[in-house]
Amino acid sequence: MTAPIRVLGLSGSLRRQSLNTALLRAAAELAPAGVTVEIVDLAGLPFYNQDIDGADAPAAAIDLRARLKAADAVLLASPEYNYSIAPVLKNALDWASRPYGQSVLDGKPAALLGVGGGMGTSRAQYHLRQVGVFLNMHIINKPEIFVVNAPGKFDDAGRLVDEPTRALVAQQLTALRDWTRLLQAGRAATSAQAAE
Amino acid sequence: MTAPIRVLGLSGSLRRQSLNTALLRAAAELAPAGVTVEIVDLAGLPFYNQDIDGADAPAAAIDLRARLKAADAVLLASPEYNYSIAPVLKNALDWASRPYGQSVLDGKPAALLGVGGGMGTSRAQYHLRQVGVFLNMHIINKPEIFVVNAPGKFDDAGRLVDEPTRALVAQQLTALRDWTRLLQAGRAATSAQAAE
Amino acid sequence: MTAPIRVLGLSGSLRRQSLNTALLRAAAELAPAGVTVEIVDLAGLPFYNQDIDGADAPAAAIDLRARLKAADAVLLASPEYNYSIAPVLKNALDWASRPYGQSVLDGKPAALLGVGGGMGTSRAQYHLRQVGVFLNMHIINKPEIFVVNAPGKFDDAGRLVDEPTRALVAQQLTALRDWTRLLQAGRAATSAQAAE
Amino acid sequence: MTAPIRVLGLSGSLRRQSLNTALLRAAAELAPAGVTVEIVDLAGLPFYNQDIDGADAPAAAIDLRARLKAADAVLLASPEYNYSIAPVLKNALDWASRPYGQSVLDGKPAALLGVGGGMGTSRAQYHLRQVGVFLNMHIINKPEIFVVNAPGKFDDAGRLVDEPTRALVAQQLTALRDWTRLLQAGRAATSAQAAE
Repeated sequence: MTAPIRVLGLSGSLRRQSLNTALLRAAAELAPAGVTVEIVDLAGLPFYNQDIDGADAPAAAIDLRARLKAADAVLLASPEYNYSIAPVLKNALDWASRPYGQSVLDGKPAALLGVGGGMGTSRAQYHLRQVGVFLNMHIINKPEIFVVNAPGKFDDAGRLVDEPTRALVAQQLTALRDWTRLLQAGRAATSAQAAE
Repeated sequence: MTAPIRVLGLSGSLRRQSLNTALLRAAAELAPAGVTVEIVDLAGLPFYNQDIDGADAPAAAIDLRARLKAADAVLLASPEYNYSIAPVLKNALDWASRPYGQSVLDGKPAALLGVGGGMGTSRAQYHLRQVGVFLNMHIINKPEIFVVNAPGKFDDAGRLVDEPTRALVAQQLTALRDWTRLLQAGRAATSAQAAE
Repeated sequence: MTAPIRVLGLSGSLRRQSLNTALLRAAAELAPAGVTVEIVDLAGLPFYNQDIDGADAPAAAIDLRARLKAADAVLLASPEYNYSIAPVLKNALDWASRPYGQSVLDGKPAALLGVGGGMGTSRAQYHLRQVGVFLNMHIINKPEIFVVNAPGKFDDAGRLVDEPTRALVAQQLTALRDWTRLLQAGRAATSAQAAE
Repeated sequence: MTAPIRVLGLSGSLRRQSLNTALLRAAAELAPAGVTVEIVDLAGLPFYNQDIDGADAPAAAIDLRARLKAADAVLLASPEYNYSIAPVLKNALDWASRPYGQSVLDGKPAALLGVGGGMGTSRAQYHLRQVGVFLNMHIINKPEIFVVNAPGKFDDAGRLVDEPTRALVAQQLTALRDWTRLLQAGRAATSAQAAE
């Protein structure tokens, strides 16, 4: 029996009725066996500024780092603003990456999804993947989730109701779970070997 | 005699001793004949959120839009955080791009420069160029300015003192001025023609 | 009265029934008043290799350079292979860019379009835009043309028959024509001024 | 005792004195314990064209696919032409990725390195990473190798002699070996578990 994979979800939008945050709620609802999804509220996090980091870092940053550290994997819901990443999401990653050399994202498995824009946020997601190189995150390649917003995919209460999209979200979480377990098992096996 | 080109400078860093803001100050100091450079303070701008835009948009956003609208060209000083754009800069562009259909950046000539990172912020600048496609900005191709931070390029007061870099900044402003004038003259000539 | 804008079209696919080449034929058919579109056959061009360039450059390369030099603007039909540029198209640009300092693409107005892939070749087109920065091409921002292949858009003879796509191609050529004229008029005006 | 990791090296340049091919030779020379590096000659591979693929695919393509299939990991030496990927390298990946659904690159661990350009080929390498997403390759994040060409790094016979670069190449191969073993061990463990 294996421990559940704890996934932490970050949304790049602060809007009350954000569809990207709605995607994260759908992920929590649709999580397959062996996966739990929690969502962080990023509203309290100021713009990263080295002048306010350090011993007096904002409580929201300290909390974000602790929760990311405890998570087994990360799920990033990425709106696309003007063909690139939403500042709220990028800023959360920037806080999480500091202090230099102590990034809580180092080696972390991750998955990306998003809704909106003419291309389902794909342009923003490819920028996020480049960020993942520096952060040494292990982002799954497939399935990619690019939801083009359309009437009827979400209901009035902000619940994802489009069945093909729901199936895709479940499939991505399964892939993220399996990838996270594969990396965990691989690390365990290779460090055991190194220790012999 | 031609009117001076008014360039508005935006820096992606809020740090008091930001070298990217220092680059903008150097640009203001080194502006060639026919160019003025003003710098916007972005500290008061909150994260873009459609819920707080509209009739009650923050004063800092209204002010930013007005100043960009009045400017002939834009100069973006771009730090690189984790291989992509600093949220402070991206967020300013996001505010400026709204409301949809009334972007004050539409058709605006622009130039990019930055200091820091292993590659002089080039990775962030290529992401900014993709943002410029959606915003329909006309970003000059050359010269690109990728300043690798090194001891002695800036003095203790945050003044750019490295002569090759100073020459490059002056050269970029000259290119931006000439490009802005070319577009202005081209628009004048082709709309005169269309009116005949 | 203004001279017609001569547009040279390059397709990244060598397939006999290539839909990207079909898009170029549609562009030639739909060219608005004041625009002509010619298509280059890239089948004879070998892989760029400095060892075979120079005085003994292949005839196909010499011909391509001459035709690009004579063109007022360039139209690139870009398939997307594995999320990036088709080698046939990239290779043509590489040949055209040499010898160093004598690129026939320098300062050239251009437009991009493509058909295929899950995203209408957008991922390849953003890579092409980055190539355009080094080549100092002036690629129009809008309209972008990302044709998702679908039954009925092209007929059995490889003719584009989808009306909305045909309208978009005509609209892009009009934008390319106007942009080319704007740059030409702007250059004429600013060099006249410099000569006074 | 573990079997050696067989790495197949592909270079994007056909030049006889290519420094990127020289980097691959250095990799073969510097391979750490448990790693072998073989280099493929890509000179005989024509441009990908669906019309010539299939039962009558060129021998060079069939051979490339067989060797990639047999390899445990891939090492891509990437020149940068005009801010993007060299067609020779992209074309090899395109051939390897077909037929659709039978790509020999699927799930393959990989590493990237390159020499040349103002930025050590970094711009081309980030494009390659996007290609890797579609191909479902697992490219290591670190160390990145961006060699700025400089007198004295290679000797007249095309041998890499710069000690810091040699150390970096050895370090990258070690990282690729460990990553490949980690993935192999993780796959073995998780499929054993699934079979219980």
